[in-house]
Order: sequence, then structure tokens, then C-alpha cells
Amino acid sequence: MRLSRYFLPVLKETPADATIASHRYMLRAGMIKQNSAGIYTWLPLGHRVLKKIEQIVREEQNKAGAIEMLMPTIQSADLWRETGRYDAYGPEMLRITDRHDREMLFGPTNEDMITDVFRSFVRSYKDLPKMLYHIQWKFRDETRPRFGVMRGREFLMKDTYSFDLTKEDAVKSYNKMFTAYLNTFARLGIKAVPMKADTGPIGGDLSHEFVILAESGESEVFCHRDLVEMAPPGDVDFDGDLSHIFDERTSLYAATEEMHDAEEFAKIPEDKQLSARGIEVGHIFYFGDKYSAPMNATVMDSNGKPQNVMMGSYGIGVSRLVGGIIEACHDENGIVWPKSVSPFGVGIINLNLKDEDCGIAATDFYEKCQAAGLDPLYDDSNDRGGVKFSRMDLIGLPYQVVIGPRGLKEGIVEVKDRATGERQNLSPDAALNLLIEAFA
Amino acid sequence: MRLSRYFLPVLKETPADATIASHRYMLRAGMIKQNSAGIYTWLPLGHRVLKKIEQIVREEQNKAGAIEMLMPTIQSADLWRETGRYDAYGPEMLRITDRHDREMLFGPTNEDMITDVFRSFVRSYKDLPKMLYHIQWKFRDETRPRFGVMRGREFLMKDTYSFDLTKEDAVKSYNKMFTAYLNTFARLGIKAVPMKADTGPIGGDLSHEFVILAESGESEVFCHRDLVEMAPPGDVDFDGDLSHIFDERTSLYAATEEMHDAEEFAKIPEDKQLSARGIEVGHIFYFGDKYSAPMNATVMDSNGKPQNVMMGSYGIGVSRLVGGIIEACHDENGIVWPKSVSPFGVGIINLNLKDEDCGIAATDFYEKCQAAGLDPLYDDSNDRGGVKFSRMDLIGLPYQVVIGPRGLKEGIVEVKDRATGERQNLSPDAALNLLIEAFA
Repeated sequence: MRLSRYFLPVLKETPADATIASHRYMLRAGMIKQNSAGIYTWLPLGHRVLKKIEQIVREEQNKAGAIEMLMPTIQSADLWRETGRYDAYGPEMLRITDRHDREMLFGPTNEDMITDVFRSFVRSYKDLPKMLYHIQWKFRDETRPRFGVMRGREFLMKDTYSFDLTKEDAVKSYNKMFTAYLNTFARLGIKAVPMKADTGPIGGDLSHEFVILAESGESEVFCHRDLVEMAPPGDVDFDGDLSHIFDERTSLYAATEEMHDAEEFAKIPEDKQLSARGIEVGHIFYFGDKYSAPMNATVMDSNGKPQNVMMGSYGIGVSRLVGGIIEACHDENGIVWPKSVSPFGVGIINLNLKDEDCGIAATDFYEKCQAAGLDPLYDDSNDRGGVKFSRMDLIGLPYQVVIGPRGLKEGIVEVKDRATGERQNLSPDAALNLLIEAFA
Repeated sequence: MRLSRYFLPVLKETPADATIASHRYMLRAGMIKQNSAGIYTWLPLGHRVLKKIEQIVREEQNKAGAIEMLMPTIQSADLWRETGRYDAYGPEMLRITDRHDREMLFGPTNEDMITDVFRSFVRSYKDLPKMLYHIQWKFRDETRPRFGVMRGREFLMKDTYSFDLTKEDAVKSYNKMFTAYLNTFARLGIKAVPMKADTGPIGGDLSHEFVILAESGESEVFCHRDLVEMAPPGDVDFDGDLSHIFDERTSLYAATEEMHDAEEFAKIPEDKQLSARGIEVGHIFYFGDKYSAPMNATVMDSNGKPQNVMMGSYGIGVSRLVGGIIEACHDENGIVWPKSVSPFGVGIINLNLKDEDCGIAATDFYEKCQAAGLDPLYDDSNDRGGVKFSRMDLIGLPYQVVIGPRGLKEGIVEVKDRATGERQNLSPDAALNLLIEAFA
């Protein structure tokens, strides 16, 4: 993409109401624009990151055997009355009356609706297990939206729902999602620790939050230090036994504030005790028949007897993750994207648009990067070098290639690694090879 | 995908309230489930088609130089008051009050909001032209939703907005979208004719609808027969002059009911006069400063004088297209998907699950199809052959491969072309090659 054709409205000033790094940098880097309190437009740069995260989340769900579908944003209040949640949910639920005075709502979550879908079609234990998911916009009418997309009102979430005949089978589904989440967050370039968690308004008796450690985290978390550096499971057989993956992690102490047990924590060797601030990016629940019982979602077992289906739900905050990743990956100059979610692979800076050789070399390098699938952003603007450098640092692409008349005379371009700041002078061909290898 | 692991709730009975083919087949083929009037869940099979259409629309927008972003579903009423549309829009707009009693709405379209985004950032004619688009769920509170996803309340739309300094430039943007739309619909496997159209509540003085001809169409349309078979422009230079593409089509008569001129129509040679029912799948508008003037969206021209930016908007009904394509592509046994949007490339039927050789051959063929990127659906269910055949016809994959014990003894499988009904007995290898070539 040529910057001259793109839409990248970078701000010079730091917006006054943005108190945390991700909010500040997302506004400054032209990733989002606030439309109303807690409601944002995803400008092209932000949209690219959102889509990359969404796609990684999707791929890992598919690997685990979950099937994608899509439920609507607007739901009927009647469904929520069946489970008693319409009255229980409180003012966070955006309630709507349509033109025929029917009570509707903008879905804050989908347990009730998916249970209705399930009971409409599935009759037999032979159709189980099933894991269904969707990636859809949701709305929670926070009383005080803040921290940009980290606590917005309209937000994008991936939510999966599992259906099993028995609790034993449901725990297998839980372990599949537990495993898929570890792989998902690792691919996103962040370290998310599974922690024993409160079940909140979703309910149930088994629940884990996946938490990124970051100073700006909203709550305090406590865990064994080894959990942070533990490698993800990687390629596993999702039809096989995954309990060891679950056991290996849950045998070490890790808990959110609400579930913290100071006595247990104290038993960890002191140098392994980690108490930090955390950002929740995923939350998984097993809640058995909490929804299937009131909604009468049953399947016939092998004896022909109807049984309430045993359910779990599994959420990842896709739009929240954009902010969460920035909280974990930035420095004083801006964002430092992990390669897997960076909006572009490499930024190319042409230092002198009036120099013909420079223009030819930069365009040639840009086209070679495109052909190699490196998804380059080519700064072909008329701005001064200093403006170009700081903008490129701000938007945080993993690599920058600076092409200027002086270097070109010696046959070199400069490659900068955004994370380390390391610079190398290389021939254009060597620079291209370095980039291709870095993204291989 | 193995059917035993998928979620494909096919219905035996035709739902009583579904009066047109697409609605009937989408319900019967387990593509959608109605949640409330005009609001649907996209079940896995339907979701796949929706995503394929979305991706083709996206790719053709990108080729034309439009930049993707994403605006939220919930908008502030204040924006719509600036253009006077909050009061003008009527009860089709879903109006919402949030917990702080602020007036909001679920966006039925986004001219007002994109104009606000534009004016927040763009100052100079040097930043023009710009074309921005998003693919987002919208809501129109139809008083009588019907025809399934063809006239639903919650629907997915691609809407592009163009910004230019002058009307002359804006017409160039209009021609870009006109061209991109012709290519888009051709790739989707349908014949959509651009027709002079009324501008309705969007406003403006230049507008075309893109219309599929189908018996179930909601309105009458009139055009020169040659327009239906005209080849799409294909690969063009979107920076070049596209007016010939526009002129070539618009020189032939084509108009929707509202814009029909019987006298002009009568001048077409009689054998070229086509009057038919039509389904609108796209609509493009040039409306100049209708929004930029009241919202004060100006840019500095080359003399440093502020000018209202000249705008157009360009919509494609992505979810409506799922129904529209089915209206154009079905027979008495079910859907007949164009290859480009089919939920799976090929359906494999194992005729006898108890026959070991048959299972081995079917699994082997399935895995080879997967490896070749043919995206197969393997019916490994215990259902009778007849059930499998009619289900496969109903869901309309372009090819079916039937693997049974009798054929296998002779080393053959049967390949059926869903559109023509033609059957061929081939060796598994020859069948695979046929499929690979068909999708090349």
C-alpha cells in the first residue's frame, strides 16, 4: 500500500482523555476514532489488526473442531426471559423496543440464543459432541466506558459453545478450548496465563480467565512465575486426551483477585511468586445444565431417555485484544507489533521524493516486497524525514527500510528492527532476503 | 469436513411461511434459522456462503482502490440531526435510548457517520480522491419482513463512500465503482444489469441499481436484452479512463419501474426488448454535497479556499445476495451454487459405511480432495443412499462424487455435475483430476 493512497490520519497531539498507552497510541496512530462514549470506528490501520487477530482466533478454533456460524446482534427479550436473565442482567444490557413494540436487546452474550438454536435441531446423543462458535459484535452498556477499546460498549467477541451428553465429555470439550486458547494467544505474540476465575453472570462451577500481565491491567493477579514462560502445546490431536495440558498448567498456582487464596500463594517458592496487574483477554466456563435445564434443551441418550445437554462457553475479546497486545508490546515511541498481527509487514521510507534514483529504487523495493507477500506500506509522502521516522515508529511495523540518496550511491539501504532498534546497512537484495526470512 | 462432525440441520418439510425458492431452500438446507421476524442466525452452511460472497466483494473493492475500515453499528442520533435525517427517516430506523438517556440508533446506512469521520481528519484537496468502505451489519425495521434474508431487518451490507474535490472527479469515482460492481457480480456467478434508478432517501442526481433478473423479483424492470449477456470489464487500470465502460452500458436502455420511460423503451428493436422481474443487489449514488454541506465537510482547494467535498455512496447487499444468487441458481431439487460461492467445492457420498473397502476408498478420496484444496464435504453419515442423494442435491455443491461397493469392484466412482445432472463413471484418480481442473 502506498501511503499517498491510504487513509492514515496520524495525530500529533496526545489526546487528553487517553490515560493508558494502548488508547493513546491507537488514537495517535490513526487506528480508531471515537464516535460516542465507548463506541469506535476502526480506521483502516486498526481494522487491519482487528482482522488479523480475528483470523488467527478463527484458525485455532477450526483446528480444535469448533464450527463457525453467526448469530445476529439483535435478540428477542423472550429468549432471555426463559432463563431469567432478562431481569437479572441489569442496565448493562441495551434494551430496545421495535416498531411493533416488541422487546428486543443488543446481545451482550449468546448462551440463551445458542441454546435455542441447539434445541431446535439436535435430538440425539449421536450428534454430540458439538462445538459451535461465532465472531460477532456485542454491546454492553458500561456506565463509564474507558481505556479505549479495552472497555468499550460495542466490542467484537469470539464466543464458542460446547454441547455434550455428560459432564465427563464436557470437560473434554473444556480442555480442547483450554488448549486452543493457549495456542491462540501464543500465535498472537502474547503471554496469556490461564487463571482460576470467578464465573460471574455466566454461571457454572469451572472457569478460567486468560490474562496478559501488564502494568495497566485492571485487576491484580497472582501466579507461579513458571506459567508465564510455559511453551504453548502447539500441534496436538484434538481427538486425543488433552488433560495433561490442562493438568500441567492448573497444578501451578494462578488466580485472579476474586479467587485469590493468600495461604496457597505463600506456599510457592518465594522467587517464583508473581503478583502483577492483569488484563483479561479470554474467559472459559463450564456451566452444565444452567441454560439447557430452563430452556429444555435435551437429547436422547443411548437408552432413549432425554437428558439435559451439558454446556460450556468460551470467549475471546477480539477487539479488546488489539488494546491488550499494545499494552504488552509498546515503547516510548509507539507500538511494537508482533509479526503475526502487524497491520503491514514492513514500512518503506523514501527519504527524498525529488531524487529520481531514490524514487526508482524505493518503488522497485516496494514492488519486490509486494511480490514476496511482505505486505509493505510505502511512505511516498512529501513529509520531512523526521516526520516519516516518528510516524513509522508510532505505527510499529516490525521492520523499516529507509531508502535515501546517500546510501543508494553506495548501493545500500537501511533496515531497522522496530523491537530492538538495531539498524543494518544492506544491499536492497540482502535487505529483501532478510525480510523474507524474518516472515518465513 | 466430515458431515458427522459438521452441523447441518436439514429439514424434511418445507416451512409453510417461505413463499420463494431462496427462503425455502435456505431453511431446508440448514443455512439459516429465524430468531425473530426478519432476524436470522447464519448456520454453518449459510455462514460459509456469506463469507465467500463477502470476500469476493472485498477483493474487488480493494482492486478498485477503496480502503477498508469498519464503522460501528450503534450511532449517535446527534449526527443524524445535523443532516436532518433523524426526523426524516421514519419508523424504519431502530431508535435506542442508552442507560444515560442518550438517543442512539442502529445504523441503517452510514453517510452521516462517514462524513463525520472524513471532516475530522481530511483538510486538503491533496488527500483526495479517497474511497472508504466497510462491510457491516445494518438494521432496518421493516414493517413486514419477508422473503427470508432478501428483506430481513438485520442485514450485512458493503457500503463504500467516495470523496472528491469536484463533480468531474466524483464521476470518475462513480465509474470506478460501476466497473468494480460489474466485475463483482460476474465473479459471484450472476448476471446483474445496471439500471437507471431512483435515489430514494439517500438523495442525489445520479444513481444506478444493479439488478438480477428472476421471476421472484420484487419489482418490474425494463432493459435492452444485450445488457444481460455483456461480458464484465475484467482486469482494468482503475487509474485510467473508465468512462467507456460506463457509456457502453448506459447507452442501452435499462430502467427500474420508478424510472421507466415507455416511449424510450419502445424505440428498442422488439426482439431486444426485455421486461422482467428484478432483484436489486447493488445500488450506487452520486449526491455531491448533500451531506458535506450541512455537516461542513470541506477541504482546501489549490487556492486555499474551502470547498464542500463531493460525495457518492455505493452499496452491495451481501446477505441479500445469498438469497439473490439462489433465486437465480436453483432447480426443483434444490440449490445449484456457482463455483465461486459454493459452501464446499465437492460433496463425497459414501454409499455403504459398513463396507470396509468403501470406507477406505471414500476416506482416501476425501483426503486427496482436501490436499488439493477442493474443500470437500464428506457424507459419512449412516443415512440411506436416497437421503444422501437428495440432501446433496438440496445443498447444491457443484460436484458430487458417489463411492459405492459395486463401482469400486470395477475401480470406478461416479461424478455428478449438479448443474447439468450429467454423470460420469471414472477411476478415483480421473475423478480427482476432473475436479481439480474444474476449480482451476
